[in-house]
Amino acid sequence: MEYRRIKDQENYGEKSQTDVENQHGKPFSVGAADSVPSSGVSSTNKSNWKLKSVVTIALTLLTSSQAILIVWSKRAGKYDYSVTTANFSVEALKCTLSLAALVRIWKSHGVTADNTLSTSFEEVNVYPIPAILYLIKNLLQYYIFAYVDAPAYQILKNLNIISTGVLYRIILKKKLSEIQWAAFILLCAGCTTAQLNSTSDRVLQTPFQGWVMAIVMALLSGFAGVYTEAIIKKRPSRNINVQNFWLYVFGMIFNLVAICIQDYDEVMNKGFFHGYSFITVCMVLNHALSGIAVSMVMKYADNIVKVYSTSVAMLLTAVLSVFLFSFHLSLAFFLGSTVVSVSVYLHSIGKPQPQK
Amino acid sequence: MEYRRIKDQENYGEKSQTDVENQHGKPFSVGAADSVPSSGVSSTNKSNWKLKSVVTIALTLLTSSQAILIVWSKRAGKYDYSVTTANFSVEALKCTLSLAALVRIWKSHGVTADNTLSTSFEEVNVYPIPAILYLIKNLLQYYIFAYVDAPAYQILKNLNIISTGVLYRIILKKKLSEIQWAAFILLCAGCTTAQLNSTSDRVLQTPFQGWVMAIVMALLSGFAGVYTEAIIKKRPSRNINVQNFWLYVFGMIFNLVAICIQDYDEVMNKGFFHGYSFITVCMVLNHALSGIAVSMVMKYADNIVKVYSTSVAMLLTAVLSVFLFSFHLSLAFFLGSTVVSVSVYLHSIGKPQPQK
Repeated sequence: MEYRRIKDQENYGEKSQTDVENQHGKPFSVGAADSVPSSGVSSTNKSNWKLKSVVTIALTLLTSSQAILIVWSKRAGKYDYSVTTANFSVEALKCTLSLAALVRIWKSHGVTADNTLSTSFEEVNVYPIPAILYLIKNLLQYYIFAYVDAPAYQILKNLNIISTGVLYRIILKKKLSEIQWAAFILLCAGCTTAQLNSTSDRVLQTPFQGWVMAIVMALLSGFAGVYTEAIIKKRPSRNINVQNFWLYVFGMIFNLVAICIQDYDEVMNKGFFHGYSFITVCMVLNHALSGIAVSMVMKYADNIVKVYSTSVAMLLTAVLSVFLFSFHLSLAFFLGSTVVSVSVYLHSIGKPQPQK
Repeated sequence: MEYRRIKDQENYGEKSQTDVENQHGKPFSVGAADSVPSSGVSSTNKSNWKLKSVVTIALTLLTSSQAILIVWSKRAGKYDYSVTTANFSVEALKCTLSLAALVRIWKSHGVTADNTLSTSFEEVNVYPIPAILYLIKNLLQYYIFAYVDAPAYQILKNLNIISTGVLYRIILKKKLSEIQWAAFILLCAGCTTAQLNSTSDRVLQTPFQGWVMAIVMALLSGFAGVYTEAIIKKRPSRNINVQNFWLYVFGMIFNLVAICIQDYDEVMNKGFFHGYSFITVCMVLNHALSGIAVSMVMKYADNIVKVYSTSVAMLLTAVLSVFLFSFHLSLAFFLGSTVVSVSVYLHSIGKPQPQK
């Protein structure tokens, strides 16, 4: 019954997937974010810009509704399902959606070297790496709570912003201008400010081990993100759905490992989908769609756009919560939002000058 | 008690010398902050830059020790002196110091058209304006506390930053680049963030009248600052000590008016210097010197530099307080300081391109 609901909603997801896909037929060059404008390719650039905007807005909206769904599911009571099976379901759903999108493309454009599912060891041998990194990070998450409490962890998670920026620079060797670096520090400070509350100062009492773990987790998360971008951009002409399909296959495999480590007994006794509610299904669907949106952003934009998108989503969530849950906006939130807005503005005007 | 403290902080520090004066003999051109570097005047520019740095650092250090002195005097108990007489004493001391500096200059360089004390109505007719503006603002201060409490008022005072920027642009017709504007918004947000505490959210409950008064006070304060800069820069070759002398004469007159309005009976019954302690004398001296530093910054730099200088001083005060009074630094303070630091950096790299 619950599973059918996922199936029903899958069609909807597929449609939104194909919408993005339709744009795929338009000419684009990969690495759009850093391409230097030149007069001859203005229509390509315009199309790139459009595609980049669509996937970025999709990611922002999906991420902001994610947090709303979490609050909703919390209001309905505590989680009765096992988180590992939900993660597996998300990967499986993303895999299915990618496949469905591919089938449509095969039907309309035929099977080509770029959109065929068959691959080589040389192409997919790096695909498990992001999945492994996320798995390690998620396992570490169980241990960090021995040193920091949940609100402090929320604050420390903002270190992801800095780690992503640094690793993006080092691994992808892409340049950010001085202004863009300043903007990135502001983004981190602004997001943290927006989340400040009366208990936030406890984060300053985080023991050394807590800081080390938080930094390691931020690096793992940043590395996984940047590595995924490197994988996806390595083959610019390769269809994103094929790339996604293989990424998600490994995601499924490693989440299966996580189920075996953490929830084997529970799944065996109560069943795989035990405790799934309507909200759980919505969350799985939302995570699957936002996961695909992240891949799209990696393909057509980059990790920096992803970080900005999810940060703005965090602020949007708070504003939406005012209407949905009579959430109280603090002065810190207004100040943080102002800093984030200025950061977005500075990032956009601070593009590095093209090298001549 | 709180109220008196704020009143003190507010009344002082607006409008100070001897060390700075020694540098006065060196060549300078006014409007140094905006002068476009050209190869022919590099030594003049270097000298300008040095002078600008010295007065800016002096202002920053004097302003940060100001707040420390206020905390010290608070520890010594409540203020027994009348604030209006302290303000008058500050003006009188500044006047005396300006005169002393002038006497030294007359002895070494002789009396010239630029350093003579005698003046024309046409020169001094605008000098009372800043003094009147400050007087109005200080009187308004008595009424704003009907609508906002003291901590909320501290937060609202950061509106001064924005009003100074806007009036600087409008009245002095000087350009800030897009990046410098962004930096200015960040300065305001960063200073406010650094001051956040558990009671700050009350500022959001400020009634409409409170907002109007806070904005009017910010405009008066900003206008007085920008107007003083306009007066001082109008006659670039005029000796700053002569300009200060006349400014402070009007400051004395208007503070005498304030004494008559507010503390006439107290002064008549208990005497002018009643309740003055060693700390009070130190505060008067500090305010006089920082007042002269403000004038120097107006002459050799500008209001924007003044705002940055006093904002950085606010952060320095907090850091010094950790050592002096075992003050506790909050996460909000670190975040605010980060934003202010980035703002200072952006302001310095974001200089408008010279018009060709």
